Amino acid sequence: MSAEGETNGAERLCDSLIAQGVDTCFANPGTSEMHFVGALDRRPQMRCVLGLFEGVVTGAADGYARLAEKPAATLLHTGPGLANGLANLHNAKRARTPLINVVGDHATYHLEYEAPLASDIDSLARPMSNWLGRGSHPDQVAAQAAEAWRAAVSTPGVATLVLPADMAWGRAEPGPIVPLQRPALKRPDAAKVRAIAREMEKPGRTVLLVGGRAVREGALALVAAIAEKSGADFIAETFNARIERGAGRVPIGKLPYAVDDAVAYLAGAARVILIDARAPVGFFAYPDKPSLLHDPAGSLHKLVEVDEDLSEALALLADSLGVDLQQASASNRTSPPNPAPALPQGPLTAASTCAIVAALLPENAIVCDESVSAGGAFFPASHASPRHDYLQITGGSIGIGLPLGAGAAVACPDRRVVCLQADGSAMYTIQALWTQARERLAVTTVILSNRRYAILEHEMRNVGIREYGENARRMLRFDDPPLDWLGLARGHGVESARAETGEVLADLLRAANSRKGPFLIEAVI
Amino acid sequence: MSAEGETNGAERLCDSLIAQGVDTCFANPGTSEMHFVGALDRRPQMRCVLGLFEGVVTGAADGYARLAEKPAATLLHTGPGLANGLANLHNAKRARTPLINVVGDHATYHLEYEAPLASDIDSLARPMSNWLGRGSHPDQVAAQAAEAWRAAVSTPGVATLVLPADMAWGRAEPGPIVPLQRPALKRPDAAKVRAIAREMEKPGRTVLLVGGRAVREGALALVAAIAEKSGADFIAETFNARIERGAGRVPIGKLPYAVDDAVAYLAGAARVILIDARAPVGFFAYPDKPSLLHDPAGSLHKLVEVDEDLSEALALLADSLGVDLQQASASNRTSPPNPAPALPQGPLTAASTCAIVAALLPENAIVCDESVSAGGAFFPASHASPRHDYLQITGGSIGIGLPLGAGAAVACPDRRVVCLQADGSAMYTIQALWTQARERLAVTTVILSNRRYAILEHEMRNVGIREYGENARRMLRFDDPPLDWLGLARGHGVESARAETGEVLADLLRAANSRKGPFLIEAVI
Repeated sequence: MSAEGETNGAERLCDSLIAQGVDTCFANPGTSEMHFVGALDRRPQMRCVLGLFEGVVTGAADGYARLAEKPAATLLHTGPGLANGLANLHNAKRARTPLINVVGDHATYHLEYEAPLASDIDSLARPMSNWLGRGSHPDQVAAQAAEAWRAAVSTPGVATLVLPADMAWGRAEPGPIVPLQRPALKRPDAAKVRAIAREMEKPGRTVLLVGGRAVREGALALVAAIAEKSGADFIAETFNARIERGAGRVPIGKLPYAVDDAVAYLAGAARVILIDARAPVGFFAYPDKPSLLHDPAGSLHKLVEVDEDLSEALALLADSLGVDLQQASASNRTSPPNPAPALPQGPLTAASTCAIVAALLPENAIVCDESVSAGGAFFPASHASPRHDYLQITGGSIGIGLPLGAGAAVACPDRRVVCLQADGSAMYTIQALWTQARERLAVTTVILSNRRYAILEHEMRNVGIREYGENARRMLRFDDPPLDWLGLARGHGVESARAETGEVLADLLRAANSRKGPFLIEAVI
Repeated sequence: MSAEGETNGAERLCDSLIAQGVDTCFANPGTSEMHFVGALDRRPQMRCVLGLFEGVVTGAADGYARLAEKPAATLLHTGPGLANGLANLHNAKRARTPLINVVGDHATYHLEYEAPLASDIDSLARPMSNWLGRGSHPDQVAAQAAEAWRAAVSTPGVATLVLPADMAWGRAEPGPIVPLQRPALKRPDAAKVRAIAREMEKPGRTVLLVGGRAVREGALALVAAIAEKSGADFIAETFNARIERGAGRVPIGKLPYAVDDAVAYLAGAARVILIDARAPVGFFAYPDKPSLLHDPAGSLHKLVEVDEDLSEALALLADSLGVDLQQASASNRTSPPNPAPALPQGPLTAASTCAIVAALLPENAIVCDESVSAGGAFFPASHASPRHDYLQITGGSIGIGLPLGAGAAVACPDRRVVCLQADGSAMYTIQALWTQARERLAVTTVILSNRRYAILEHEMRNVGIREYGENARRMLRFDDPPLDWLGLARGHGVESARAETGEVLADLLRAANSRKGPFLIEAVI
């Protein structure tokens, strides 16, 4: 089918993606995707990265796009392959990550026979997709791929394109592919922004809840200037796709995860201004605790929609409040570098592990934080660390950290990725270590090894269960047997070592962070 | 909530499951399931088995029920947790395995706030569920659990019960729980069965395609007698939930996986009688190959529906054909034991590995075969092995073998499980090894280690792509770096060793199969 002047749907799909600037495909293909694999094979300008499990594929595509600021494609195998990737697609959707999720399906005429792998892919894809399409003719696939791209970058979010096998192998009309343009952001509603400024000038405490595009360096400097001028407090959402932070940037706290703490922070706020953030709600419901976290006597105001220009809205808000943007140099609000951060010694704890990772962060690092309960100390300890990007789990679907790190490293080969990773969560997508090894990715993984779902032990107490027995213990702890992290790393082809003291952890981190390839450290806490 | 006379929805759900005889729960809970965990904790008669990934949970529940002949419960955490379990639920549904799939969700009143973990669970669950319900009131949960049980055992298949957190923690009326009865099988349509007998007496070749309940020892003996009397051929479906086979039982072949081979086998058959089997269709579609595998000039006849009594239908068919059930002792049709099976020596191949595993199978073993392309030699080599149960992947969703084996071992603690496992497929649910170790399960895992998706290399050739380059090679092979299976096993707490020759494999198998706990052998082929 690669004879001159002949082409097929799979090739058209590849060419359309490439025309849109998509040059990276995270893949775990199967039989129904073989023509797509064949097409990719004839397009060496597309980098294909194999994951041995689909959750690695989708999580890596998320991490890639958070750094590359453009979508990668995935390639998944029918309904079950998609299902395996859904948990991290959920996170990507919540992170507003642009992602083109290509899912192979049976040939259209084969579906009616209910072959073993047949399933309702649309029903599976819909909850985790912002856009869903299905290849309808080999000649149409190029246009549909472009449409998926446009949906992915303009929502932004997950665009799932289902590609039946006969749409891939079917003969298509050749011809040039004209790429679509990225749609322009809408201008913000000036009247609404000015009304928010007037609201902020009224008596009472204002909280600026900051998320999405607003926790990047430039926007955050403007937010800080607005807060300073207006006397408002500002704080980031609990979970963020990407915060630009560290020395020389504006430090920002995060709204606490625990409902009581978040409610306490927001108590008495006459208004909460959502700056590319969602309304603050409890991560879970608890008996006798509220779902909505802001003060019920206060009001909520949304500065922009996701398809509106945030920079313009912030500039307008600043202007409306009389912020002098010339004078409002951010320098006096940014974190000074910390020339001699503490390096705790002796037996490791969760807190000392976090302090040491923060102290030894390389310049321009990318931190993927899925440390869950054990890593709470990292964020406050790293305001003055060298400048870095800070990526979090956004949808609560654990098992994102290692894939996210792999994808970020693919996007930024000249930067060091540091994954601060809870042990329980790591196990959901442990196969990401192999992709790190295969691609020689510059990732340092620090496993916070406490051999339990500590957050669930905490949540058991939260719901009022203080004493529990064998059945609960066996669902909350995995200390019998303990995971052997050095074995797991070696199994996937990644070098590793164990640290039980601060001194050893510091030595290992220095060595790991100066390597070219991956390294895993088990921090026994 | 466990004060005298008080109870809650979670406790009612547990008590209802226990009343139905469900005493095993495979679990990977999260915060929204903490009250259910608390309830399980107060019911030590329920065995709780933790999986570190949800695909382990659902695959183990499938393996358990295939042997225990009754459902286990699962416990999964909201939409993403369910998503991670869907691939093996797909296999369970295709295997017609009874399974009660309990999925926690946010409290009902919390859903509207679109908290980070919120998703459309129903849309995710529907494709892989035969029955879908949602806890609607703490007082109703016991009845809904019983209804889920009835659906699971009578379909049989996957019954998904979504349990919102407030339905679990909400106060419920105490009181006795009256279990439901298993619904009786319907009597088969005698006229239809007799018509099939008349059809079989017409000229032309008859193929009995045998599946489901019909590949168990008693039914299969009857099928063989019917085939002998009528001159029909009989063959099992390509993928089977559980075949009872080995020395002293009727040997049966399997319809080939490859479309051309299956079409060749069925060519010229004037009729195919489906005995608890599905109509034969291609696993995948291929350009210029048929979807339907039977001879287009022949006819298809279905002996029974899944809710009809198969034994009665077979007896009636035998009677209609004049089979003398007294004389028709199966003994002359069963495999004689093989006193000295061959033990190939020297460097291992896929075929010699299969031959050695077959030769050294322990009496009454349970074989979980997810060997995909490398294990084709096992089935023909093991007709005369000691009697064993033979479990396969049924829905084509790879990553079932290790969880299936773990669940089977939980169901049958006095039998040895032997997993014949392809390396690529093993990686989707590798965390099952930890559950083997945690529960000290009697599982021997033999990894057919060829460091590639060999079936996909075959399929590339199948779709006409004979030569391929770097991009395709990197999606079809995982030899760089190779997986270190001893590291992976040790990482999960399972002892292991590597075999590169037949002699070593035989020694390791003898030692492994005589242990109490798990052991993994990497067979380098």
